[in-house]
Amino acid sequence: MKLGEGVEAAIHCAATLASVEGNSTMPGAALAEAFGLSPSYLLKHLNTLTAARILESVPGPAGGYRLARAAERITLLDIVLAVEGREPAFRCGEIRRNGPVKIDASAYVRPCGINAAMMKAERAYRAALAEVKVSDMVATYAAEGDPRSIAATCAFVERHQRPQKSGSTKQIQNPKQM
Amino acid sequence: MKLGEGVEAAIHCAATLASVEGNSTMPGAALAEAFGLSPSYLLKHLNTLTAARILESVPGPAGGYRLARAAERITLLDIVLAVEGREPAFRCGEIRRNGPVKIDASAYVRPCGINAAMMKAERAYRAALAEVKVSDMVATYAAEGDPRSIAATCAFVERHQRPQKSGSTKQIQNPKQM
Repeated sequence: MKLGEGVEAAIHCAATLASVEGNSTMPGAALAEAFGLSPSYLLKHLNTLTAARILESVPGPAGGYRLARAAERITLLDIVLAVEGREPAFRCGEIRRNGPVKIDASAYVRPCGINAAMMKAERAYRAALAEVKVSDMVATYAAEGDPRSIAATCAFVERHQRPQKSGSTKQIQNPKQM
Repeated sequence: MKLGEGVEAAIHCAATLASVEGNSTMPGAALAEAFGLSPSYLLKHLNTLTAARILESVPGPAGGYRLARAAERITLLDIVLAVEGREPAFRCGEIRRNGPVKIDASAYVRPCGINAAMMKAERAYRAALAEVKVSDMVATYAAEGDPRSIAATCAFVERHQRPQKSGSTKQIQNPKQM
């Protein structure tokens, strides 16, 4: 079982965008620079997050990305499902029906116990991811991050964020201010 | 995130082998037939389970596979880790260090909060899988499976199991006897 590398990039980007001021945006190129990633690689994931309405993309020369809603309302589960897809990790192929003796479909009305057990574990995984908000990630970083790293992150955000004219209801959450 | 199809096959095979009598074995070809799978495809997974000491492979014309220990001592987690590998699904690439400002490694002594949150969810997933034993799967099948399906499975096991001369401590767990 493996999650794509895009999950790490997507969560870090969301946490960074949670730190921009007001309704400012940050260009994809700056987010790529912040984590040493290829801009074209990251763009794919930023577009996926935008399609999932986790990010908003503002076009134009002063445009970029910002959170589509408050960081308190975006969970790690939202991001993982956006990047990896909503299908469960375990996909029951109903191989129990493939044996040499063909039995009427009415014998398989109840779900396979193996599938049920695997789905129960997956629900536990998803519940744990749903408990963690992007705002929690920023708060953890503010509380536990090294001051040198926090100072560099805040300076980077201040240098690359692009204030917008139009209003936004997104709350500001700057690790330096917590 | 996706688990390989081998997980479903591996769990079904382990549950089937939990139903053979005493220290009997079942050939890989019969297990493949039981689930309509390609024998060469299934062999790969049976060998993986054998290498992980979940199954035992008995060589020779009367050989085959059997559980390496009692079904009560094999969990779904054992099987998933054997088939999929023991690495976590989320693999932290420490991209937090890749930004434009290079900061001394001493700033990253504490694990990344994002990695910690992802690992917490993975522990919940693994804990749920570790709670379910192969014997539970057999018991669920015996309690909830359709009588036609159970009868066909038991007849298949009785037809294909191969009694062995050497002793085994594995407990018998036949769904027909539960």
